[in-house]
Parts: sequence; C-alpha cells; structure tokens
Amino acid sequence: MALSPLAPAHFPDLPIIEGVRFASGAAGVKYQGRHDVMLVELAAGTAVAGVFTRSATRSAPVLDCQSKMGSAADGRAAILVNSGNSNAFTGAAGEHSVAAICDAVAAASGIPSSRIFTASTGVIGERLLHERITAKVNDLWAVLSPNGIEDAANAIMTTDTFAKGATADVVIDGKTVRIAGIAKGSGMIAPDMATMLVYIFTDAKISQADLQILLSTLTDQTLNCITVDSDTSTSDSLMCAATGASGVDVTVSAGFTQALHGVMLNLAHQVVRDGEGATKFVEIHVSGAASDADARKVGLSIANSPLVKTAIAGEDPNWGRIIMAIGKSGAQADRDRLTIRFGDILVAENGWVSPDYTEDAGAAYMKQQDLVIAVDLGIAGGLGTIWTCDLTHGYITINADYRS
Amino acid sequence: MALSPLAPAHFPDLPIIEGVRFASGAAGVKYQGRHDVMLVELAAGTAVAGVFTRSATRSAPVLDCQSKMGSAADGRAAILVNSGNSNAFTGAAGEHSVAAICDAVAAASGIPSSRIFTASTGVIGERLLHERITAKVNDLWAVLSPNGIEDAANAIMTTDTFAKGATADVVIDGKTVRIAGIAKGSGMIAPDMATMLVYIFTDAKISQADLQILLSTLTDQTLNCITVDSDTSTSDSLMCAATGASGVDVTVSAGFTQALHGVMLNLAHQVVRDGEGATKFVEIHVSGAASDADARKVGLSIANSPLVKTAIAGEDPNWGRIIMAIGKSGAQADRDRLTIRFGDILVAENGWVSPDYTEDAGAAYMKQQDLVIAVDLGIAGGLGTIWTCDLTHGYITINADYRS
Repeated sequence: MALSPLAPAHFPDLPIIEGVRFASGAAGVKYQGRHDVMLVELAAGTAVAGVFTRSATRSAPVLDCQSKMGSAADGRAAILVNSGNSNAFTGAAGEHSVAAICDAVAAASGIPSSRIFTASTGVIGERLLHERITAKVNDLWAVLSPNGIEDAANAIMTTDTFAKGATADVVIDGKTVRIAGIAKGSGMIAPDMATMLVYIFTDAKISQADLQILLSTLTDQTLNCITVDSDTSTSDSLMCAATGASGVDVTVSAGFTQALHGVMLNLAHQVVRDGEGATKFVEIHVSGAASDADARKVGLSIANSPLVKTAIAGEDPNWGRIIMAIGKSGAQADRDRLTIRFGDILVAENGWVSPDYTEDAGAAYMKQQDLVIAVDLGIAGGLGTIWTCDLTHGYITINADYRS
Repeated sequence: MALSPLAPAHFPDLPIIEGVRFASGAAGVKYQGRHDVMLVELAAGTAVAGVFTRSATRSAPVLDCQSKMGSAADGRAAILVNSGNSNAFTGAAGEHSVAAICDAVAAASGIPSSRIFTASTGVIGERLLHERITAKVNDLWAVLSPNGIEDAANAIMTTDTFAKGATADVVIDGKTVRIAGIAKGSGMIAPDMATMLVYIFTDAKISQADLQILLSTLTDQTLNCITVDSDTSTSDSLMCAATGASGVDVTVSAGFTQALHGVMLNLAHQVVRDGEGATKFVEIHVSGAASDADARKVGLSIANSPLVKTAIAGEDPNWGRIIMAIGKSGAQADRDRLTIRFGDILVAENGWVSPDYTEDAGAAYMKQQDLVIAVDLGIAGGLGTIWTCDLTHGYITINADYRS
C-alpha cells in the first residue's frame, strides 16, 4: 500500500515511560514477513482505564477487557494486541482464544489473568489462530524493553500506511510527567465510540477511577470527533495506563489534562490522515447551533456525506452539497441565517451565495491538502468540530477486495 | 454517461390517463441539445397530493408546492418541472423564479397560480434562469398531448442514465382504473423523505384528503425504503394526480392501493437500479427485530455502509462487514441469536459462521446482479426491507467533478 500523502514526515521520538516495557514479534496470524503482535508489561500499581466500542456485535477481546476494567490496580498488568484477525463474531471459539492468550501471558509473566488485556484487529468472522500467538509469548516476554514502542506501533497496523505515535510532557511542581501514545486505524472509522486501537502510557500518578473519567471525557472531544467512512469497528479500544513512576499526582492537574488531550487529538488526526484512500484532511467547524449536540449532528452529516467527500476529492468547491448535508442532518437550521466559509473565504450567507464569493477563489482554496469548512447556523451558541477526509477511488480500490 | 447495467430493457408502454396531457421541450436551462422542461395539464377536479423532502434547506419550488397542497380541487391544475438547476439555496431570487414560472403558466393556461406546482432538479445554489423557461411556456402549452409521458420522463433526468416509468391497472366494479408514473433519481438518494422527483397520474376518483393519506402511507413502504448514497436531496418531490375520469371511486379499494403500491415500488427500484455507478441491485430484508423501527435501522445501516457497499462491488461475500453494520446500527441485537443469509445460503448463525457455509458458495452468489441479503435478529417480530446498490469507482468518477 502506498504511503498516505497526508502522512507525517516521520514517526515521532517517543520518550521512555518509566514502568512500561514493550516487545513485538511475528506470529504469522495472517500477515507474513512482518510483526503482528505487540506485548506490553505495566509495572505494579499502574492504573489502567479504557474506552471501548458500543457496537452490539463487539469482539470477544473487547468484551473481555470491559469485564476487567475498574478492578484493583495493585500488581503488574499486561496488554497483548495482534493484527490480521479481529476475533469478532467468532462465537464461543472467540472467547476461548482470548482465554488461551491470557493464560499464556499469565504463565510467562506471573501476572493474574484479571490484569491481562488483549485486543485483536483485522478480518471479522474468521477463527483467530491463537496458537500461533501463544507459541510466541515466552519469546516476546524475554525481549521486553522500554524502547520498543515504535516497533509496537508498527506491529498493530492493518490497512494503515504509517505507524502513529504522539507525545507530550508537562512539568508539575518541578517534576516532568511524560505521555506517549500509539494508534492504528484507517478504515471502519466512525465516531460515537472509541475509535480503533489506541494505547497511551504515562508515568503520571492517578487513580483508576479518576483516569477513567478523564479518558472518557477527552475521548468525546478527540477520538469521538473523527470519521473516515461512517463505519464503526467491532474492535475499537482505547486504553491509557498510568504507572505513577513520576511520583506526580495529576488528579486535578489542568496541565496534564491538556497534555493528554493533545496526545489524543494528535493520534485522532493521524488516523484521519491515514484514512483509506484519503488525499485531503478536512476540519469541519460548526458554530451558532441550537446546541452542541446539533452542531455535532451537522458536522457529522457533512463529514459522512459521500457527495461532500467526493466533491472534496475532486477539488470542487461544491458548497451546494454542504447545504444539502446541513438540511438532511436533522439539526435545527434556517436557510437564511446560516453562513459557510472555506478557510477565510465567505461562501454563502443570507440564504444564498455571498456576493463577494468567486468560484475561482473557492476552487483555489480546495487545491490545498488541509481544508477548513466552517458553518455558522446563526441560531444559538452550540459548537462542535469534526475531522474527516475525502472519498476517493483509493477507498473503493482498498475495500472492494480487502479480503481477497 | 453509459447506460446503467441494471437498466430495464426498455421504457414501459404507459397508458393514456384521461384528463392528463403532457408537453416537453428544450429551454436550455443548463443542458444543451435535449429536453429539460416538462409541462403537465390536469383536468378540472383532479385531486393532487404530494410528499416532499423534510430537509431544512429544501428548495424554493418545494416550499411553494407544500404551501399549495390541500387547497380546493375544483378547477384544472398544472405541473412544470425543469432539470439542470434545482433552485435550492437561491434566497429571495429563488422564490421570485418560482413565482415567475407560475405566472407564465397561469397566463398561458388560465389556471390560477394556486393550482400550479413546480419542481426543479439539478445543481444547488445557482440562480435558476427562469426567463429561459417562461419564454417557452406558450410553445409548450400549444403542444400538450395525452401521449407525451415518455418524453416528459426524459426531460426531467439529470445524472439518470435511463428514463423511469411504471404502470398498473385494476378493474373495479367492471371498470378499469389506470395508473401511470414517472420518476427521476440516481444520486443524492436517501430514504426518510420522498425521494427525488416522482409524478404519478391516475384516472381514479378519490378526494384530495384521502389521496394524500394513501400516498403518504405507501411512500413509507416504497420510496422511503431506498438509498443510493445516504444523501438526501433538497428537492425531493412526489406528486400523485387523480383525475377521476374513470368515474371509479377508489377511496376504500384494496385493489387500487395495491396497484398504486406496485407502481411506486417499481419506480423506487428503478431509481436504485440507476444509482450512480451501480452494478448490483441489493434487497436487504430484516426480520426478527425488536420492532419494525429497529428492522429499518439495521437495514439502513447495512445499506448505507460504505464497507458493505464496496464489498458487494468487489463481489466479496464479506459477511463480517454486515455484522459490523448490524452492530453499529443502534438497534437491539444479540450476536448469538442473529442469522445472515445470502439468498438461500445460510451464512452465519449462533454467533459464528454456519458450519455448512463455504466461501465458494458465497462468492458464487455474489456474482449475481440482483442480490438478497437477509438478516434475522431472532429477538421479536419486527420486519423491514431496504433496497440499495453497490458503491463503485463509477460513483466516485461521477461525483468528484459533477459540476465541472
């Protein structure tokens, strides 16, 4: 697969997070000649929080992780993720595979199964050949290293064209708290649930309950505000592990909240930038809505509209399709009060195209790789931002025979 | 534009409907070298009912038609439709254009403006050059003929690759009641509103109020059950005109209801068969849902999923994506109780792939042009059917530069 034209120049330098060690390896679950398993060890006392898909057909590992969230955080913990097979809609065999993987990690590590979290990403409905993974667990455990996060980010990719990482740090009371996160995701990306696989590590000190509240809140402002294709994965999982090794309590730290928000938004944007077939990164900013919920409805209606997305792919400033998407959204809207802007260019106002707008200006703007479409509904103060990409021949090519 | 591979062999022979006369002509609104205006005269006493888009940004002609619905049906009536420009989001100028067209038809025909209905379909947000239409109204009025319905169906096309017509008749008390309908529609097709432009004529005798109830009810079972791309037009209009010329009162006729349902479903299917870029016609049948509303949610979630639609385009029996679409629909579902069938082939049951299912059988089935995907949720008796098409490179090609 060709590298996305929206990819960052390189994988970022991620700091070592004290208390976290990584390993990755090639189990050959589906892909050959590349790593497809990542294993993470978390030091004793690490708080682990998670946000998962709300799909009614969520995968066996998601169900297992959800059942383990919120339990006591005294001992060590581990995370094992494989790519190539999602272990979703695999019946009782799927649950058996999760148990077998957790048992193998428990045997290798001495960590109780209740603190072992797994995820699987890839094809739905085919049995996970977990014996290929369990056969590798001892080898993986032997090579755990604080430096392995970039390799881990590569191991969890499926249709991704680049590995995704982000970092931030914040100084609190003279001490540095570090955050490093990785993500995978490219297709089957829609908000309203945690999106795809995201793992964030920090040496901050915070209780599991407080970390969970923080993570859920920030998810609604970041990963739940992106969409590639309106389709929602059966495997979406976001986990954040706080080892406490910095000794800095961040329970009420605005600085830490902001830093974690930044890492999550950065990863969310990278998932959109690796959207299947994407050639444009689009921010849709909605203001003046009757409520924040209405702003979100309008933003998602625009972001998920195939006609808007194909117009953007064709660099066509077809604002009529944005009008259409606002109209169908179900949000309160008044034709004569809304305005549309492309970047700083006023396109439509007072129920029609702006008298100062020219097609040439709109067409020139659409040639940019990063676009901002701003809609003000002129009704009240509701706000929302959604990030998305265009819909191209590349998306069709990738998905018309992904399994074959 | 190449003819859709799903097109019917030919336009049907539509009967003359007593009391209805047609004309069409070339006004050059946008397209050159083809007819782009249709004019219909309806005899005195014709009951006219309509169903229109619920878009918050609906077009000026839609707003005008809605304001005129339900008024007295004593005198004659007229319908004028142009293609090439939708007169949507055109501010006060749009209302002025509608008034100018109605005035021109009134002057040519002697019909009061309150009984003149217009529609416009095509590009959004550009001023309708109504003077090109009004200049032709006298000429059109002079050539009205009971035989012009096929030419009219051609005149209202935009990205359609074939004209759409359907007919039915029913004998009641020894007398024949005839129905003939035409439609246009190919992209920006989503249910939950009347879809695109549909005009149905009958010589049945029925009051405007009863016709309206019947039309609205049948719309929910036919045109509101299709989707091409989940996008909803600002111009969607469905009108039914009953001239009463047969002398047969159909107010409580099950036979007439069934015949009208058949015509509407036939036209709805033709719109899907002309879906932009479509190569497959897909019926999605959902049963066993907690409610009919839940069945509809599941059907639409599958029908609108880009990943399901691209899998179908690739003839890939990727039932995992159907599981995904059920899971994200928001409807009540239980992984272990649902079944999926491709035609007669049992694909998935008891939370996993059926032991008798083979990929070869699934792949062979997907090569057919007309597909049936049946989902039983195993919960209660809720039922629903949605019709859709696949998502192909053709859709991207058509829509990445439709305006250019």
